[in-house]
Amino acid sequence: MTSSLPEKVSITEICPRDGFQNIKEWIPTELKIQVIDLLIDSGLRNFEITSFVSPKAIPQMADASSIAAHVLQRMKKEKLALDAVALTPNLRGAIAAWEAGIRHISYVISASAAHNKANINRTHQESLNDLSAIVATYPDMHVTLSMSTVFGCPFDGGVPVSQVLWLLEQALERGVRDVTLCDTIGVASPIQTAEIIDAICEQFPTLDIALHMHDTHGMALANILVGLQHGIRRFETAAGGLGGCPFAPGAAGNAATEDVINMMHRMGVKTGVDLELELKASAIIRQHIQQNLMSHLAGSRSYAEHTFWQRNS
Amino acid sequence: MTSSLPEKVSITEICPRDGFQNIKEWIPTELKIQVIDLLIDSGLRNFEITSFVSPKAIPQMADASSIAAHVLQRMKKEKLALDAVALTPNLRGAIAAWEAGIRHISYVISASAAHNKANINRTHQESLNDLSAIVATYPDMHVTLSMSTVFGCPFDGGVPVSQVLWLLEQALERGVRDVTLCDTIGVASPIQTAEIIDAICEQFPTLDIALHMHDTHGMALANILVGLQHGIRRFETAAGGLGGCPFAPGAAGNAATEDVINMMHRMGVKTGVDLELELKASAIIRQHIQQNLMSHLAGSRSYAEHTFWQRNS
Repeated sequence: MTSSLPEKVSITEICPRDGFQNIKEWIPTELKIQVIDLLIDSGLRNFEITSFVSPKAIPQMADASSIAAHVLQRMKKEKLALDAVALTPNLRGAIAAWEAGIRHISYVISASAAHNKANINRTHQESLNDLSAIVATYPDMHVTLSMSTVFGCPFDGGVPVSQVLWLLEQALERGVRDVTLCDTIGVASPIQTAEIIDAICEQFPTLDIALHMHDTHGMALANILVGLQHGIRRFETAAGGLGGCPFAPGAAGNAATEDVINMMHRMGVKTGVDLELELKASAIIRQHIQQNLMSHLAGSRSYAEHTFWQRNS
Repeated sequence: MTSSLPEKVSITEICPRDGFQNIKEWIPTELKIQVIDLLIDSGLRNFEITSFVSPKAIPQMADASSIAAHVLQRMKKEKLALDAVALTPNLRGAIAAWEAGIRHISYVISASAAHNKANINRTHQESLNDLSAIVATYPDMHVTLSMSTVFGCPFDGGVPVSQVLWLLEQALERGVRDVTLCDTIGVASPIQTAEIIDAICEQFPTLDIALHMHDTHGMALANILVGLQHGIRRFETAAGGLGGCPFAPGAAGNAATEDVINMMHRMGVKTGVDLELELKASAIIRQHIQQNLMSHLAGSRSYAEHTFWQRNS
């Protein structure tokens, strides 16, 4: 099995966006920045730092411009090569992101029509039209397609692979550079993960693919492992295992960054992240934002127990 | 990936032993029996129903004979082909098990000397001597070696594969028929799981191997998946994800039966278990025994949400 594993993988930290968006109580901007700074300090270099969306729909993201300003300033000051991505669902969000200095967006469209409507109140065609407008307006913007409900929809149930391929093709024709496959409600099985990756790789052999797996049914790490075995090298994870979707009933948190990093390191796969430092960020999240984390390393198992094992292995 | 998967696997339900032993408050025998009966009703046919150990060490197992009597009576009455296994750590326990009508025991020895001492207060040699005595006394008893701390020890840290192979050889020479590899503290990585399985299969190509993975670091399902890929067809799991070891600091629960069954079924691998019925047992456990389950299907995600997804997929 060792032979199929890469020397290193890239982890995109999405707690500041997917994690925080799902917390109802307002998280002060200073606390968000504290967590982001600790995560940067741990060695993470790829971030979804916020989203530019209607503050009526997601009040928690109302400070998107302030978050972006802080991260961009720190990048400049410390000459940090960070990939600071913001999620947007439409042209309006892309304009706001560009004006805030963001040059890489995750453009979200759901594979299932019902969730696209529930999540961002758009048809597929409306989403694709805005994508065209974004690429035309900002040819220098790196646009990643963040495809939701690839593995299942809370409203429609199963999503045909043909629909995923169709939407991906439409988005690629309009200028997205890469894709993140999101298991929005955390129901993918390892077989399904393998089959969808293989189908996409067959049709688009040079496409750069990332996985974004929620852990609702406990299969997130198994699916990430299968992703590794099938050539995936980029994974989106959230410190503390935070996350969910306000418009996807039943969705649980993301694969926890610390759990994924631990699995990678225990398999000899490098991430560039110092796990002990990353756990400091998760400890702040647990203390100040959400006590009951779904994370294994930072949640029910305490930090002390984790380090006990680390010391003895 | 589909080609590497079997048509069906065997699930051994260990909540009645490994799950209940870790609950401090006394669980009335009637409640234990209610859970076991619901689990039998769901289609599960392999059980670790209790353990014959010192009631001073594990008070929760003091009703071992009553549990065994109930299960054996039900087997006889309904002509059920159940495999009703009891765990024992020594000759004394094996005698009690035999006298209670049990004909299949899990004989526990830890791969690491430190955990064997902490768990059952014996050296490896003392454990092996008792094993010889058990086989000599009861040649018709099916003895499975339940090897603890195969993937790591809470005291010694890493456990060399050579030590696992040595202990296994010693036990096989003394008459154990098969082996269960236990990740007692839930720290195995997928690579480690693959390597240990491959090493054992190389030395003992006809040996029947089961996996028993705890989920402390969230890798239990990933490790079970790797087990499947490397030829393992028997898995020990606990309804509700209960479990742990009173003498292994930091250990969390077992892979939850419902989570494993769900993963198997979603991959098209049969288990012979009706998931909806199994979840009724987990619901009783959650309601009457432990509210905060580590299970994904029966824990933080509610039964209602689960069935919502099932209905729509």
